[in-house]
Amino acid sequence: MTRRAPSTRAEYPHFLRITTRWMDNDVYRHVNNVVYYSFFDTAVTEYMLRTGVLDFHSSPTVSLVVETGCTYFAPISFPDEVHCGLRVAHLGSSSVRYEIGVFRNDDESTVAEGFFVHVCCDRESHRPVPMPANLRSALEALRSAPR
Amino acid sequence: MTRRAPSTRAEYPHFLRITTRWMDNDVYRHVNNVVYYSFFDTAVTEYMLRTGVLDFHSSPTVSLVVETGCTYFAPISFPDEVHCGLRVAHLGSSSVRYEIGVFRNDDESTVAEGFFVHVCCDRESHRPVPMPANLRSALEALRSAPR
Amino acid sequence: MTRRAPSTRAEYPHFLRITTRWMDNDVYRHVNNVVYYSFFDTAVTEYMLRTGVLDFHSSPTVSLVVETGCTYFAPISFPDEVHCGLRVAHLGSSSVRYEIGVFRNDDESTVAEGFFVHVCCDRESHRPVPMPANLRSALEALRSAPR
Amino acid sequence: MTRRAPSTRAEYPHFLRITTRWMDNDVYRHVNNVVYYSFFDTAVTEYMLRTGVLDFHSSPTVSLVVETGCTYFAPISFPDEVHCGLRVAHLGSSSVRYEIGVFRNDDESTVAEGFFVHVCCDRESHRPVPMPANLRSALEALRSAPR
Repeated sequence: MTRRAPSTRAEYPHFLRITTRWMDNDVYRHVNNVVYYSFFDTAVTEYMLRTGVLDFHSSPTVSLVVETGCTYFAPISFPDEVHCGLRVAHLGSSSVRYEIGVFRNDDESTVAEGFFVHVCCDRESHRPVPMPANLRSALEALRSAPR
Repeated sequence: MTRRAPSTRAEYPHFLRITTRWMDNDVYRHVNNVVYYSFFDTAVTEYMLRTGVLDFHSSPTVSLVVETGCTYFAPISFPDEVHCGLRVAHLGSSSVRYEIGVFRNDDESTVAEGFFVHVCCDRESHRPVPMPANLRSALEALRSAPR
Repeated sequence: MTRRAPSTRAEYPHFLRITTRWMDNDVYRHVNNVVYYSFFDTAVTEYMLRTGVLDFHSSPTVSLVVETGCTYFAPISFPDEVHCGLRVAHLGSSSVRYEIGVFRNDDESTVAEGFFVHVCCDRESHRPVPMPANLRSALEALRSAPR
Repeated sequence: MTRRAPSTRAEYPHFLRITTRWMDNDVYRHVNNVVYYSFFDTAVTEYMLRTGVLDFHSSPTVSLVVETGCTYFAPISFPDEVHCGLRVAHLGSSSVRYEIGVFRNDDESTVAEGFFVHVCCDRESHRPVPMPANLRSALEALRSAPR
């Protein structure tokens, strides 16, 4: 396996701080591999709520998760805090690939990196549809790192 | 049922801030009742780690959870933050009853209140033993609210 | 503390089998105290779904959780299975107190016992209302153990 | 995106049944995307425990998770049961790639498919080392589907 190098904070335009919980630690005394995906899910959804583009009550479209993944470089352990960097790596007409960098406390390099692919679908038929303009605009803002 | 009134921040000597996660919300769009117990577990353990009285590798005693409970007053929802107030309501020779007040964001009154009973036991036999002096001292500091 | 004795399978009229998960085990290599509440929540909701009395889409009433609790007698560990016994200990006009016995694999005595209080409320105002007849009927069936 | 077709039960040599929990369902009334990874983690670990190759107390080697991923085809919801098919897709000198097919109840095709890469490492240095013979033997048995 050739593994890519960890990325740095400068490569992410948006951050969310998440606190770990005692039960996140598993038998090995590290945050269990599953928990990282709750960080990704939380970072993406919080951004959508923050920018007002997630309306899970009544919008005609819903964003369905079709693929996720994570590469783990180094462990974290409760009571570490996690800083999740969020960026958009690909933006199609109906789909978006988010990439999430997980930083431990004040670390400058990621301890894990994940991705999360959403497809914008019709609420009833679940067929892909072009994403609404306000969602696209919010995602465009995540396409490049701050200078 | 007669229910006690919510308590206020002034009744807790120690606080821990915990972030909610998207998956904490259940079908009813509120943080599921189970998740509150992870707040209690986290607040208690973080205090023990912070004060240096939790050594889960090699100490001759371990603290076993024998009883927990929670009363729910009002819902919270992601992305709310939770501020957990922690106090000690009873301190026996081998047992301690923690009480935890859950505050939603900057609320002054609790939205839920829980308790958590630890018994200090011998690591091997799991029989109750008097708690070590450093643990008792750390717990004494949680017995009264700040003035 | 005076602690009640564990109860037996004969004291519960209904059972649900739940599998544990690797991440349920915490640093102490036992299922974390929080996870038991997901067993209670699951046993109660499964019974309501099974008997057709939970309609979380459109019913005019909702069941709100107002209090829960658990007493722990002995640990369980992945890959143990849990058998949850469910009974109704109190049935008021709008509230119900469920009691749940947690049995480890084929054990005859509980390793933990919990309770779960639901109040039937108006979906909009969240004020207590008398529970619907079909819900009451389903709960009556849990009031006594099988002979 | 070109997406592969769901696979069938015949493509997996080993299965584990896992029950869903009420709190697995998120706001969208489906099992949250994060929870699938607890299925993978559980299926892999249960197989290692079952075959006696996981000794997390004292073995000189540990298996570290370096990469995981999941593709989602269709939703599942509590109280669905999950049947996890487990196979080994790649077996190196120190690493193994597990593939997990998630089947909903008695479905013949997967609703999600994941992978899970373990690297066998020295317990102290966390450097990759050749995996022990008993582990390799257990993994070889997962390399091909039953005929």
